[in-house]
Amino acid sequence: MSSQYGKKIKISVFGQSHSSAVGVSIDGLPAGITLDIDEMRSFMRRRAPGQNDISTARTEEDEPEILCGLVNGVTCGAPLAVVIRNTNVRSGDYNETLDIPRPSHADYTAHVKFDGHQDSAGGGHFSGRLTAPLCAAGWICLEILRGLGIYIAAHILQIGSAKDDPFDPAGVSKKDFDAIKDNPLPVLRRDAADAMRLQILDAKEKEDSTGGIIECAAVGLPAGLGDPMFDGIENRIAAIVFGIPGVKGIEFGSGFDGSARNGSGNNDSFYMDNGIIKTRTNNCGGVLGGITNGMPVLFRAAFKPTPSIGMEQGSVSLSRLENAVLRVKGRHDPCIVPRAVPCVEAAAAIALYDAYLDSSVSV
Amino acid sequence: MSSQYGKKIKISVFGQSHSSAVGVSIDGLPAGITLDIDEMRSFMRRRAPGQNDISTARTEEDEPEILCGLVNGVTCGAPLAVVIRNTNVRSGDYNETLDIPRPSHADYTAHVKFDGHQDSAGGGHFSGRLTAPLCAAGWICLEILRGLGIYIAAHILQIGSAKDDPFDPAGVSKKDFDAIKDNPLPVLRRDAADAMRLQILDAKEKEDSTGGIIECAAVGLPAGLGDPMFDGIENRIAAIVFGIPGVKGIEFGSGFDGSARNGSGNNDSFYMDNGIIKTRTNNCGGVLGGITNGMPVLFRAAFKPTPSIGMEQGSVSLSRLENAVLRVKGRHDPCIVPRAVPCVEAAAAIALYDAYLDSSVSV
Amino acid sequence: MSSQYGKKIKISVFGQSHSSAVGVSIDGLPAGITLDIDEMRSFMRRRAPGQNDISTARTEEDEPEILCGLVNGVTCGAPLAVVIRNTNVRSGDYNETLDIPRPSHADYTAHVKFDGHQDSAGGGHFSGRLTAPLCAAGWICLEILRGLGIYIAAHILQIGSAKDDPFDPAGVSKKDFDAIKDNPLPVLRRDAADAMRLQILDAKEKEDSTGGIIECAAVGLPAGLGDPMFDGIENRIAAIVFGIPGVKGIEFGSGFDGSARNGSGNNDSFYMDNGIIKTRTNNCGGVLGGITNGMPVLFRAAFKPTPSIGMEQGSVSLSRLENAVLRVKGRHDPCIVPRAVPCVEAAAAIALYDAYLDSSVSV
Amino acid sequence: MSSQYGKKIKISVFGQSHSSAVGVSIDGLPAGITLDIDEMRSFMRRRAPGQNDISTARTEEDEPEILCGLVNGVTCGAPLAVVIRNTNVRSGDYNETLDIPRPSHADYTAHVKFDGHQDSAGGGHFSGRLTAPLCAAGWICLEILRGLGIYIAAHILQIGSAKDDPFDPAGVSKKDFDAIKDNPLPVLRRDAADAMRLQILDAKEKEDSTGGIIECAAVGLPAGLGDPMFDGIENRIAAIVFGIPGVKGIEFGSGFDGSARNGSGNNDSFYMDNGIIKTRTNNCGGVLGGITNGMPVLFRAAFKPTPSIGMEQGSVSLSRLENAVLRVKGRHDPCIVPRAVPCVEAAAAIALYDAYLDSSVSV
Repeated sequence: MSSQYGKKIKISVFGQSHSSAVGVSIDGLPAGITLDIDEMRSFMRRRAPGQNDISTARTEEDEPEILCGLVNGVTCGAPLAVVIRNTNVRSGDYNETLDIPRPSHADYTAHVKFDGHQDSAGGGHFSGRLTAPLCAAGWICLEILRGLGIYIAAHILQIGSAKDDPFDPAGVSKKDFDAIKDNPLPVLRRDAADAMRLQILDAKEKEDSTGGIIECAAVGLPAGLGDPMFDGIENRIAAIVFGIPGVKGIEFGSGFDGSARNGSGNNDSFYMDNGIIKTRTNNCGGVLGGITNGMPVLFRAAFKPTPSIGMEQGSVSLSRLENAVLRVKGRHDPCIVPRAVPCVEAAAAIALYDAYLDSSVSV
Repeated sequence: MSSQYGKKIKISVFGQSHSSAVGVSIDGLPAGITLDIDEMRSFMRRRAPGQNDISTARTEEDEPEILCGLVNGVTCGAPLAVVIRNTNVRSGDYNETLDIPRPSHADYTAHVKFDGHQDSAGGGHFSGRLTAPLCAAGWICLEILRGLGIYIAAHILQIGSAKDDPFDPAGVSKKDFDAIKDNPLPVLRRDAADAMRLQILDAKEKEDSTGGIIECAAVGLPAGLGDPMFDGIENRIAAIVFGIPGVKGIEFGSGFDGSARNGSGNNDSFYMDNGIIKTRTNNCGGVLGGITNGMPVLFRAAFKPTPSIGMEQGSVSLSRLENAVLRVKGRHDPCIVPRAVPCVEAAAAIALYDAYLDSSVSV
Repeated sequence: MSSQYGKKIKISVFGQSHSSAVGVSIDGLPAGITLDIDEMRSFMRRRAPGQNDISTARTEEDEPEILCGLVNGVTCGAPLAVVIRNTNVRSGDYNETLDIPRPSHADYTAHVKFDGHQDSAGGGHFSGRLTAPLCAAGWICLEILRGLGIYIAAHILQIGSAKDDPFDPAGVSKKDFDAIKDNPLPVLRRDAADAMRLQILDAKEKEDSTGGIIECAAVGLPAGLGDPMFDGIENRIAAIVFGIPGVKGIEFGSGFDGSARNGSGNNDSFYMDNGIIKTRTNNCGGVLGGITNGMPVLFRAAFKPTPSIGMEQGSVSLSRLENAVLRVKGRHDPCIVPRAVPCVEAAAAIALYDAYLDSSVSV
Repeated sequence: MSSQYGKKIKISVFGQSHSSAVGVSIDGLPAGITLDIDEMRSFMRRRAPGQNDISTARTEEDEPEILCGLVNGVTCGAPLAVVIRNTNVRSGDYNETLDIPRPSHADYTAHVKFDGHQDSAGGGHFSGRLTAPLCAAGWICLEILRGLGIYIAAHILQIGSAKDDPFDPAGVSKKDFDAIKDNPLPVLRRDAADAMRLQILDAKEKEDSTGGIIECAAVGLPAGLGDPMFDGIENRIAAIVFGIPGVKGIEFGSGFDGSARNGSGNNDSFYMDNGIIKTRTNNCGGVLGGITNGMPVLFRAAFKPTPSIGMEQGSVSLSRLENAVLRVKGRHDPCIVPRAVPCVEAAAAIALYDAYLDSSVSV
């Protein structure tokens, strides 16, 4: 069930970078929810390519078509399917990678798994293009959660050596989320955006690329969401976030830093705040024993640098089984992190809304 | 499906810290595999408490009883169930936590989710005790993988400020795994074991605790295991590793460090090595596009410090809904990391063997 | 996930007829439900062997042990595991079937699937013995449903040529269920019990066996349970009922008879009954489009005659690959139908309670 | 996951009768399989409406568009998505059913489940229209199975009182399947087709409808497919066949008739046939203990008469909550059974190919 996710909200993503379309079927949405597809369009525009000098030159019109599941803009309880046509396809750029796999890309593993029959054009089903339907499905969950008073937003925490301020783990609120929107890049500190932009342009100029870290927070979640052991909130979020191309790590709350601390320095004391149980710190990232504790859910995802770079790289020829040299042509993002921000929000929203519905019996 | 995991190998873990037993049912094991339960016993002993001065004073005889699934020591294709009786139970130690939840423990979230009916003794179903059946199931997968020439081992990379050498990402081999076994703690560098021991004893003396990082590697895996998007090797391993109590982060290959690099510094060039396609570096941790590339699969898991500490902490009274002060009594590990090493190996083995069987059609 | 069932209530059945125990883990039970294990015991006694002259001579003490999931008789939200020890095992009776498979039994297919490593003693994992844990899990669901005002009961509709009255499809109520309990066999009409008993004794005397049909009804279900297409109530019930050994057919409402009718003769007209929407007839068996309509859910399951008979039968030798003659020794039920009645109730309860929890969001 | 099915081959069906399209995403197809979409088209034509005087007057061009998953007509390992546009939509015909539900149709249960937001036009997601994508997915599985030497075909066994000959349970072969194709209706005996046609025309003239029974056989299956208990071949086939609108019963082999027999009359003796183990009869329908025994898999599905009839029927007004009278307008099939034959073949193919892939490890 490789491209499917969810227990109550089941998404099924399909498409290749250069097939006639990419899309997603979303099964399990409640009926009676009004959706404004224009807002879906503007959310999806945040991940669309070709917007500025720091992203790829390709300009892709991410135009979602709702095939079913909506009647007069209201969900009807049937699966909702969204299709996005692929336009501006230039397969020619990719023929070489069919024989000479791009280092750190899925070209080689797809070749092995699919026995040479994989669609290599533009990365096929492994392309970042597949995050377009993910964002379409995620936006719907974000909308529904918003109606429940649950808000999710992400920002770029780091690109190369340029860093933004982290969210205040215990204090992050919807206000911080709005601040992110006002900057040219999704960050909390304006000057961080400028520094990051320089890092990306520098990599671009060198025909190189750079990676980064995205931090995501969800506020307004009730305590009690998630299940023990293998269906905890961390398991659920990790299982979908690692589905975003380029993600190589995830941590919740104080994460790896916290593991170097003592318990006395990492434990989150409880206290009463106007009749509500809160914690003074939020090193657990809002999750204890896999279950939300009512504090903001907070995690960070590490994105590797875009593997497609123009510089010369060592590779092999799959047909001749000998060493080869590769220079990736085509138009690529020097850094996918800015465009990945809405994808992380979308993934978190799907996981958390699915957990919300799955937990609703016990909660 | 909270305490179940797997697609082809379905494990179902049950039990509470102080119920009459903990156990696991393992569905989907191939028939005809000979299992030596003595070896299961010695593997489980690695996580058993009360072994030395750095772990809890509780001594628990982890004696696995095989209820079914084996005929004369050979798997018969039916689900294999293992039960481990809980002995030496002292519920008295835990009564207080029913009303005053331990900071950063699951006491509070379990209380909310299960509406006050949770088994609070010893953490109930959220206890590290549940890793005993996980290890029983994992050992079986480790054994089967070993028969396939696939070896998995983990070591402590860091406790507090004491660090071990990391595995050589591209060069780690079974030899390194044997080295780990010769040390008092599972590490590569003898003196690292000593330094870690001091960190733990120091925390213990202060009635405090400490966390750490475990690094795990799997060698001998064929290329082509795992599936695109949500069933990639990273998704699968993360989904089970976050089921081990205390894990707050996971990263593959260069992980978070790699996200600060440029593509030219993080990409793994391919080359031919006696007719086999390898990569010179292994910053991807053996996984590209969710699929194994034939190099060692390498990941690190961050464990938070044990939340149960003797020092005074701030909490609340769930009955009186007012602030309260807590001093956790009972016997606890100042650091669960050493005992968690076999648990990480077990989790990785279950995820990788499940992916192996699930991929076997296409591979 | 061969021996697992359910989406919200996940049962995982394990054990073989002659392993040290059979059992089940039940994941997903709500916390706070009081269970009286004595009542579980008496429910399980209804399927236990050796009760009278029409069942096998084996007497099995079906003594359930609750390993976990209960605290002072109340569910705690953790998986509940029940183990039933196998006693009075006489493997000797079955050695022959390892080489000469019993016609219409799973001996041969288990041999093929598990490559000769299957546990052949008493049918191993394919034995009717596995319905003991099914009944344990089912009783819990029956109890919870009872608390919700939902009642389920089954009766023997037919054994050989002896027939009971069918339930009144639109009018069946809890009162009819109580009537069933007063008869020596679970039927509505006393004399039907006598006629069935004679059929069974006749088959027994001839060292033959007989099959039968069980009819099951659930009353008190709200409208709106179940999902479209592949998760309809019929799909869900069929998927678990075919897990009871010997079931070869299932039909809902007018079923096969209805398929010979015209729409005008099979459609169920709606009408208002004191503000409640009902149907005058119930040929749909309470399910329309996979979803309950508030009328009784009604289905019938066809059980084949017990394949194990003392008469001489033609078979083959798996070792010599030549024709062979078989006379099944050992003690067998001439008719398993009477003992299967609680199993059908249990299966229906698990499927319906699982659907109830899975639907609770939309309902 | 209401409209999803499968473990290795995951289909996800979407669409409503009058939405812009219906479709299906098929996840898990092996790469490298050549598919001729013209053949898919002709297979789908078998279920398309408007072909003759015995089906609805609607003429629907079932034109499948492959969105992805194919590269130059060869599967590439990525999910394959098929979309079929809905044409010739006349919602006007259905407005009344929004308030006055059609007896024995899903109008009322959909209204309850989706709280009045369901798409009532043409039955919405509950329409037989959804079997178009099911056939698209099923045809692909039929094609792949054909390449493995496994053939599946169904015929109409009964419509009203008109009966065809049943398949010879132990002897049915691909030859019989070809015979079916030569008749105006899919039956074995030409005159049966004529008799059935008269039954349908008679019902049509009376503005009534009729149901029927479809028998399906699969030949060439290896022994050993399927799993114990809840993943047996019967469970798997039933779980998808009940997803075809109108199915109210299913039986395997001798099914309900067999339940009235004695074991000596229903058991299938084994014998050697040129080194192959076969059974002389096939009352088990090719399945023992949920696992194929190498004989033809044989089952029958009961279809209720089309609920939509022109005759006056009793119903209720959902808005006024009072009794009402309904005369269904619009164009409907007096009998959907002929068009359902390819749907049953498709469902069986999906279930059996999924079981084939899921079993391939053990087999």
